[in-house]
Amino acid sequence: MTAEIAKFGHIALITPNLEKSVWFFRDIVGLEEVDRQGDTIFLRAWGDWEHHTLSLTPGNRARVDHIAWRTKRPEDVETFAEQLKAKGTEVQWIEPGEEKGQGKAIRFRLPNGYPFEIYYDVEKPKAPEGKKSRLKNNVYRPSYGIAPRRIDHVNVWTTNPSEIHQWLKDNMGFKMREYIRLNNGFVAGGWMSVTPLVHDIGVMVDPKGQPNRLHHFAYYLDNVTDILRAADILREHDITIEMGGPGRHGISQAFFLYVKDPGSGHRLELFSGGYLIFDPDWEPIEWQEHELQEGLIWYGPEMKPGGPMDDTTEC
Amino acid sequence: MTAEIAKFGHIALITPNLEKSVWFFRDIVGLEEVDRQGDTIFLRAWGDWEHHTLSLTPGNRARVDHIAWRTKRPEDVETFAEQLKAKGTEVQWIEPGEEKGQGKAIRFRLPNGYPFEIYYDVEKPKAPEGKKSRLKNNVYRPSYGIAPRRIDHVNVWTTNPSEIHQWLKDNMGFKMREYIRLNNGFVAGGWMSVTPLVHDIGVMVDPKGQPNRLHHFAYYLDNVTDILRAADILREHDITIEMGGPGRHGISQAFFLYVKDPGSGHRLELFSGGYLIFDPDWEPIEWQEHELQEGLIWYGPEMKPGGPMDDTTEC
Amino acid sequence: MTAEIAKFGHIALITPNLEKSVWFFRDIVGLEEVDRQGDTIFLRAWGDWEHHTLSLTPGNRARVDHIAWRTKRPEDVETFAEQLKAKGTEVQWIEPGEEKGQGKAIRFRLPNGYPFEIYYDVEKPKAPEGKKSRLKNNVYRPSYGIAPRRIDHVNVWTTNPSEIHQWLKDNMGFKMREYIRLNNGFVAGGWMSVTPLVHDIGVMVDPKGQPNRLHHFAYYLDNVTDILRAADILREHDITIEMGGPGRHGISQAFFLYVKDPGSGHRLELFSGGYLIFDPDWEPIEWQEHELQEGLIWYGPEMKPGGPMDDTTEC
Amino acid sequence: MTAEIAKFGHIALITPNLEKSVWFFRDIVGLEEVDRQGDTIFLRAWGDWEHHTLSLTPGNRARVDHIAWRTKRPEDVETFAEQLKAKGTEVQWIEPGEEKGQGKAIRFRLPNGYPFEIYYDVEKPKAPEGKKSRLKNNVYRPSYGIAPRRIDHVNVWTTNPSEIHQWLKDNMGFKMREYIRLNNGFVAGGWMSVTPLVHDIGVMVDPKGQPNRLHHFAYYLDNVTDILRAADILREHDITIEMGGPGRHGISQAFFLYVKDPGSGHRLELFSGGYLIFDPDWEPIEWQEHELQEGLIWYGPEMKPGGPMDDTTEC
Repeated sequence: MTAEIAKFGHIALITPNLEKSVWFFRDIVGLEEVDRQGDTIFLRAWGDWEHHTLSLTPGNRARVDHIAWRTKRPEDVETFAEQLKAKGTEVQWIEPGEEKGQGKAIRFRLPNGYPFEIYYDVEKPKAPEGKKSRLKNNVYRPSYGIAPRRIDHVNVWTTNPSEIHQWLKDNMGFKMREYIRLNNGFVAGGWMSVTPLVHDIGVMVDPKGQPNRLHHFAYYLDNVTDILRAADILREHDITIEMGGPGRHGISQAFFLYVKDPGSGHRLELFSGGYLIFDPDWEPIEWQEHELQEGLIWYGPEMKPGGPMDDTTEC
Repeated sequence: MTAEIAKFGHIALITPNLEKSVWFFRDIVGLEEVDRQGDTIFLRAWGDWEHHTLSLTPGNRARVDHIAWRTKRPEDVETFAEQLKAKGTEVQWIEPGEEKGQGKAIRFRLPNGYPFEIYYDVEKPKAPEGKKSRLKNNVYRPSYGIAPRRIDHVNVWTTNPSEIHQWLKDNMGFKMREYIRLNNGFVAGGWMSVTPLVHDIGVMVDPKGQPNRLHHFAYYLDNVTDILRAADILREHDITIEMGGPGRHGISQAFFLYVKDPGSGHRLELFSGGYLIFDPDWEPIEWQEHELQEGLIWYGPEMKPGGPMDDTTEC
Repeated sequence: MTAEIAKFGHIALITPNLEKSVWFFRDIVGLEEVDRQGDTIFLRAWGDWEHHTLSLTPGNRARVDHIAWRTKRPEDVETFAEQLKAKGTEVQWIEPGEEKGQGKAIRFRLPNGYPFEIYYDVEKPKAPEGKKSRLKNNVYRPSYGIAPRRIDHVNVWTTNPSEIHQWLKDNMGFKMREYIRLNNGFVAGGWMSVTPLVHDIGVMVDPKGQPNRLHHFAYYLDNVTDILRAADILREHDITIEMGGPGRHGISQAFFLYVKDPGSGHRLELFSGGYLIFDPDWEPIEWQEHELQEGLIWYGPEMKPGGPMDDTTEC
Repeated sequence: MTAEIAKFGHIALITPNLEKSVWFFRDIVGLEEVDRQGDTIFLRAWGDWEHHTLSLTPGNRARVDHIAWRTKRPEDVETFAEQLKAKGTEVQWIEPGEEKGQGKAIRFRLPNGYPFEIYYDVEKPKAPEGKKSRLKNNVYRPSYGIAPRRIDHVNVWTTNPSEIHQWLKDNMGFKMREYIRLNNGFVAGGWMSVTPLVHDIGVMVDPKGQPNRLHHFAYYLDNVTDILRAADILREHDITIEMGGPGRHGISQAFFLYVKDPGSGHRLELFSGGYLIFDPDWEPIEWQEHELQEGLIWYGPEMKPGGPMDDTTEC
């Protein structure tokens, strides 16, 4: 049986201003602080079951330490390791507890440099008393800040997205759901998933020609009105909402806003709605160049290369 | 007893493309067609009790025929007529039925040219069977299109807003609720009302230096999600949402989007939420020049002079 | 010029369990604690401009100390006092500061015993730094709990509502907006206002035949989704939502839920939406006996006499 | 490789009043009529990609003709047929086109009598011009009625749910997500899925002791406010919302309302929100008897056996 990825697990970020990043992600975004290990702080949303979906570690410059994917079965981690090594990818084993709350895992880089992690074993701590939800199928009681429900997806930039799309399909089983094809045939971006979400990962062309930058990662909120409430909370704290959002994407149909962690510059997307793909024979949706703008923004502010959205962090 | 204005009543628009304007306001916005008189079509929202809150009349160029205000008492119309004439304003009497559904009224122009109407008597037709709401305190059952609840306010541009603010206060009893004062002392805009709404009328400086242009008129929707639904409906019909909205105003705190009638270019605002002023000793809120941008747009796209929002219609 | 009421100001409650009532109204409902005076705690919502809209005072049993109305002009308080005395109502003067934050006021009882207060002078303290909204037209930044925007209305029970309706009309200028007439002609309830709100006060028949009980008082929330969020917050704290709400009223068209302060049993309504009445010639909406159920509950749980909703507190 | 179910496909209903059922599902619920075949009418929601998700066929009494499941691979249909026959289940082959829009399929009955269909091949017709969405990843433009996005799940009743849960697990790969265990150990209901939805199918105990009744089937709406809008639409057409909903389930966390097709009595659930399960090692949530009521209704009307919710249709 082939090894399979079950889901996007977490993202590990390096921040040059830990204190401000913690203020942003914990006090404003409303993630729960779960644990600490050395200088690293582990956080998750109120509806996240795993030990963490975000970690923050201090460092001299903002970058992504790793993007982590959980497998469907325990033995899949080993299988992935072998398959990757067989293709010449250098694979590093992470021992249980080396990353707190997590069992043994592998780390490796994609051909363009994205730092990925694959794991299966992970702790699922309950919320502490006083923070626990009375709903048995929730972890925490949502209580402060923007309070998203769960982690959703990651979006990364590269020079030639098609190569990465192919790599993700061949090596990790991601399926293409929607993509942009320019008039010259160049695929400028693709939204891929292993779940019914339209994307667990988006890979788009970097307007600045860099091989491996993070465009954003996203947390999910239940209601579009939660995104509007988030906008109010951000503005009350004088935090800039990028581009003049919120808006609605054509691709994925989700309602969103973008905001940068003022401590690191890592971009967070707050994301709600969208559609699910249950069809096993899904025909990827192609957006052509003349449709690109509507694909990116169905309504809301224009999103175009050459503006401040081009400034983003390193993978 | 002084004559008093009770409410904003309706706006009468001239459109160079009646068919397209009717399509927009009736089929897309979802106003109900109530009546016709010659070439003029009368519409209202499902929660409007008066005969009409919008009329569309064909003409060679887009302009506002009149902006109409209802008085608190029948005798107030006569009193306003006398007071205006005493100050040298030319007043024209409109006979009952001359404007369908309406009793006798007066029309006159403000010093800068805004065409106003004042009336009291007006028919309040029930909705026809099959369109009637089962709720006794509604008129129509909301059934198609964007379906706003009721007319809300009008926003007009001029060269020196302060003069008009003063005129509206002295002659019609409008109270200032919020205003913008530039560093040089110039009042760039003011939001005034005779009701607890933050504004029944906004009067702002025209970035093109015209004396009397219409910036927009607004219909009210119950929920912010109705504005998002409106955005989807507009995009499905390939109608441009201006500025890349929706967004939230600082001034009034309302959630909004702007869209132009493709038949005439008259700008419509879809408007929801905001706050009400019940305090008799309300201290007008002053927004200074450095706060202006947040006053106009708390979150959402930037609204600045020199862009397409400067293109608007004549009063 | 006749004295006029501008708005519903505040409600002063006596609670047998101050600590629990403060926990409920401040920590769960999310009202801001503004001030203390002796044993009395003063609270208001984030969008309330006056010193307080709710006060809590310990006492051996739950009751309403007074229901307070603000006048349109300072001199109206004196005029009301004289008019009431002329009709034989006993009027008690309250000195400035006797109720913290408030100037001189009068207190009196309606024929059936409702304890009313009328005042004009009131402090409008700013929010303390760190709690202040960045929006100049807000007081506090909404930050925790259910967080309603402002106080809305009061609803009281009596044996013969018509008598109180008439008293409120004759002595305080309240206008009838909607009412229920039973088959035998008895008016079982009426919703009255001096503002464009459908009601500042509702007066309904007491199913237990008491002369003067409080049914509930209400705070307003901007969005129906805020009511749903409130329901989640209440359930997370194991606080019962009465009747199995939320639901939508026919009368007023507002979306609502009812919850009792566990410290006192005083009933709070969380209230959103509804319509506004700007027409000076509003024809009160009559709901007949066969329409009563839809008037009370357009959708949501059935509200009928003989159930737990009959248990309520004393005025 | 084992045969796998990909998703809930459609439900085929028999109705004694076709005209009224079509009025309800098409004109009020707002499903799109796709096709007809003999007396059968095929419908789908605006975001359903398959030929139909609901069919209505006239018959002398209301019953479910079949509940259809789509497989992951074309060959899975044959595999399921063999596996079922090997266990002694009688399997009937349906030829391509026998059910319009669908390829070859099998029909069979579960031990307690539920009529199931399994298929893979299905047409995915585009929406006709004028009804087509401008969004490339939508099928129709949502345009009238309640307008749910897509079919969601089915909920059926039986005498001993555990037996059916086991059968669904063993024969079709459904995973248990949440379930109710009474004090005596009896499993009163279980919510199972093959997708990240909390349930594609719910199987609960029948309070009337019948072996195979349909409790409801559900369509999904994007926003909780769409459920409230649905409630308004139903009330405007004098259609009863069951139990006095809407409300929120504990189990699944979804916001809902129940309504019966007035033509057939088949119960429809309108369903929004809820959570998704991506974890491969999901530990089914057990609700004990004392938690049952909160599991069924987190907030909203009480749902208890012995009331009108017990009246439902035959499978």
